[in-house]
Amino acid sequence: MRLEEVLTEALKIVKPTKADESLLKDVIGEMENILRDEISGVDGILGISLEGSAAKNTWVRGREEADIFIHFDKNVPRDEMERKVIEIGFRAIKKAGGKPRLMYADHPYVEGVINGVTIDIVACYDVEPLNWLSATDRTPYHTKYIIERLKPGQEDQVRLLKGFMMGCGVYGAEIKVKGFSGYLTELLILNYGDFINVVKNAANWKPPIVIDIEGYYRSTEELLEIFKNQPLIVVDPVDMGRNVASAVSLTKLSEFILASRLFTSNPSLSFFKPRIKKPSIENLRELSAERNFLYIFFKLKEVKPPDVLWGELKRSEEGVKRALERLGFKVYRSDSWTDETESCLLIFELDTLKLPRFTLHRGPPIHLRTAKDFIEKWSGKAIGPWIQDDRLYVLKKRDEVDAVTLLKRELNLNRVAIAKGLASLIKNAKIDHGINSLIECSVDNPSMRSFINAFLNARPPFLSD
Amino acid sequence: MRLEEVLTEALKIVKPTKADESLLKDVIGEMENILRDEISGVDGILGISLEGSAAKNTWVRGREEADIFIHFDKNVPRDEMERKVIEIGFRAIKKAGGKPRLMYADHPYVEGVINGVTIDIVACYDVEPLNWLSATDRTPYHTKYIIERLKPGQEDQVRLLKGFMMGCGVYGAEIKVKGFSGYLTELLILNYGDFINVVKNAANWKPPIVIDIEGYYRSTEELLEIFKNQPLIVVDPVDMGRNVASAVSLTKLSEFILASRLFTSNPSLSFFKPRIKKPSIENLRELSAERNFLYIFFKLKEVKPPDVLWGELKRSEEGVKRALERLGFKVYRSDSWTDETESCLLIFELDTLKLPRFTLHRGPPIHLRTAKDFIEKWSGKAIGPWIQDDRLYVLKKRDEVDAVTLLKRELNLNRVAIAKGLASLIKNAKIDHGINSLIECSVDNPSMRSFINAFLNARPPFLSD
Repeated sequence: MRLEEVLTEALKIVKPTKADESLLKDVIGEMENILRDEISGVDGILGISLEGSAAKNTWVRGREEADIFIHFDKNVPRDEMERKVIEIGFRAIKKAGGKPRLMYADHPYVEGVINGVTIDIVACYDVEPLNWLSATDRTPYHTKYIIERLKPGQEDQVRLLKGFMMGCGVYGAEIKVKGFSGYLTELLILNYGDFINVVKNAANWKPPIVIDIEGYYRSTEELLEIFKNQPLIVVDPVDMGRNVASAVSLTKLSEFILASRLFTSNPSLSFFKPRIKKPSIENLRELSAERNFLYIFFKLKEVKPPDVLWGELKRSEEGVKRALERLGFKVYRSDSWTDETESCLLIFELDTLKLPRFTLHRGPPIHLRTAKDFIEKWSGKAIGPWIQDDRLYVLKKRDEVDAVTLLKRELNLNRVAIAKGLASLIKNAKIDHGINSLIECSVDNPSMRSFINAFLNARPPFLSD
Repeated sequence: MRLEEVLTEALKIVKPTKADESLLKDVIGEMENILRDEISGVDGILGISLEGSAAKNTWVRGREEADIFIHFDKNVPRDEMERKVIEIGFRAIKKAGGKPRLMYADHPYVEGVINGVTIDIVACYDVEPLNWLSATDRTPYHTKYIIERLKPGQEDQVRLLKGFMMGCGVYGAEIKVKGFSGYLTELLILNYGDFINVVKNAANWKPPIVIDIEGYYRSTEELLEIFKNQPLIVVDPVDMGRNVASAVSLTKLSEFILASRLFTSNPSLSFFKPRIKKPSIENLRELSAERNFLYIFFKLKEVKPPDVLWGELKRSEEGVKRALERLGFKVYRSDSWTDETESCLLIFELDTLKLPRFTLHRGPPIHLRTAKDFIEKWSGKAIGPWIQDDRLYVLKKRDEVDAVTLLKRELNLNRVAIAKGLASLIKNAKIDHGINSLIECSVDNPSMRSFINAFLNARPPFLSD
């Protein structure tokens, strides 16, 4: 397919119809009316504003959502602000016929779904730039910056870029993804002009990448010094001290670069609409044959904000991975999954599930004083010691060689760096090897099934065949 | 036991009795008479001389042997010299009632056993120092140097040092051992005065060690520059360009240093007379339990000089070790054995006998042009590719995972660096894992049995408990 055709077809996927748009506008109008009523006469509240993709006209079809911000006077204490936004938010969502849900990002906000549209009611302080009192205070300035600069038609270019990133699995700044935020895609379009120019440039990126639209810094060196170890640096036009892309992991940036390269050399609609096969249980079993998996499965006892839960899962995954490597296993890959309300799964692909019974242990060079201690320590307790070149060696015998048993022991001895919030759940989790029982479990759980499928295939969506 | 007692007892082990001595002297006297007859009137032969430990009075009890050299004029061509020493040697040994055997070191010589004494009849050229025409020409000068300088009583100190080195398994410059020659022990006694002073000094050696008795060189730096990568450098007093200790491997030197340290801190007769247990088949089986061995066993089709055979075995052992490591196995240890006439054995202790079916294969960073080739190469042929940080990875599937099968395949593809002289024997050898069948085989072969026992125990004799 030619590039123009691909983009035309892609736009049909990402661009809302007139009907989608008027539904969203109606819901927003209703919510704004309700909220204006709710805040009138409340001390310390200065007004409301529409933020996010709805305000900027850059949302992707099927992802209708609206962020409505309640602006507080900067003298309102933090706890009072939090209390008030929860009260007002709950009442407003209920009035509109929705079911309010308390959420947390940097501070609490209220979410509800009205006519299929997700509404977030969020608090911020009305402050001048750089005098931020809370993390959401920048948002109105972000919205203003984008609205003032996006030229007609560029909104659809943002939609194409978001749709491409969604299809490639790199969209979303949340910890689950560690990818690109909506604001970041808008800045990329402003910087490069249109979608195809973003991916053409990204195709040649070699991290670290630096983008400073407003030219706040004199040199790339200065920027790299300030934003150390960040693979993608996009200076926030409303706050030169902030990297808009700080959440983007090197892995997700690399996936985006590679997807951009593949797309520019061979444009295809599949980048926007990946063909994910739905394999049978037999297919999954076949795919897992002769491979070694260890998994940790547990159920949550309380609901937490998704970003908190994902953070704990990812930290625990990393801790278990390091523990397994310390024990002598090679961890080829690992991943986490949760439905965010009930079940959690950490999964690890290993070289083997059983270590060799004997392991080579290198001692000191024979000319050191410690050589004698080494001989005394190991004589009768190991095979050896023998001398090779100038060193002593023994073969140590492991008392346990099974991955599951070894990991359980390390967990019980508190020698695994797992997140505190999950510690007792993981210690009491089902820890097992093999993947067949997991495949069986996932029969009635499409989300878990598709995670297992993706893990077994081990390919990002844009590389699926 | 106190040091003095240990040395008194050790001397009883290493010092020949009057009877031993007169037997040796008688045999030598007879051989010299026979040889003087044989050479009289032969063109180009200038005379005979007694060399080696018998000449220097430094042989160890039970190791009675005599090297009788036939001195040739330097104008005699090499092939004529070789032909003549063989003819004369064969006739002389026969006359004395022995069975002559053709041997090779640097050039051919004739060996025979007369009344339990090994006689070697060797050719050399009569040349001035440094004008050497063959490798044996230095020997008469070595003998002269030692005889002129050894003080009364120092002969027995040499015997103690040799006996200590024999007991610790580091005596012998041949490739089988790569240890200390007789001449080297004599120079050590000359340098340090007596046995106990040698081991006291050696106990604190940190290689490289430099000994220049005649003070030919101005500095240690100069010596280290000339004799690069040699752990023990003992300048030959009769040829300053030669390192008498060039055959000593770092491993054997380290064993000697460690044995010296252990002996000085806790003197014991066991260093001279190691208690080697003769384990039962059941003991050996127990010792090998849960360990992984691979062995190569074959029979020789022709007899070769031991040093040639051992060199080929050691080179082949190293080649097979590298091949196994290239295939993905860890080789904890390896060793070779031969009875020098019929059977040969290479043995390897591995971490495992089966590799994991899948192996992690790291691809290029995604920003390189080769990233696309990597994706095309592996798609459908491996698990993945996926991206971690800035790189591509796949899990490659091995078509074969068994150590024995993999090694046989590499051998058949000529991808193993084995000695040419053993290539076809090794390709057609019995290559197998497990050690039980070897243990069974060794029931009627005490030499092989004791080698297997030593390999399973993996301790030098002075560390055996």
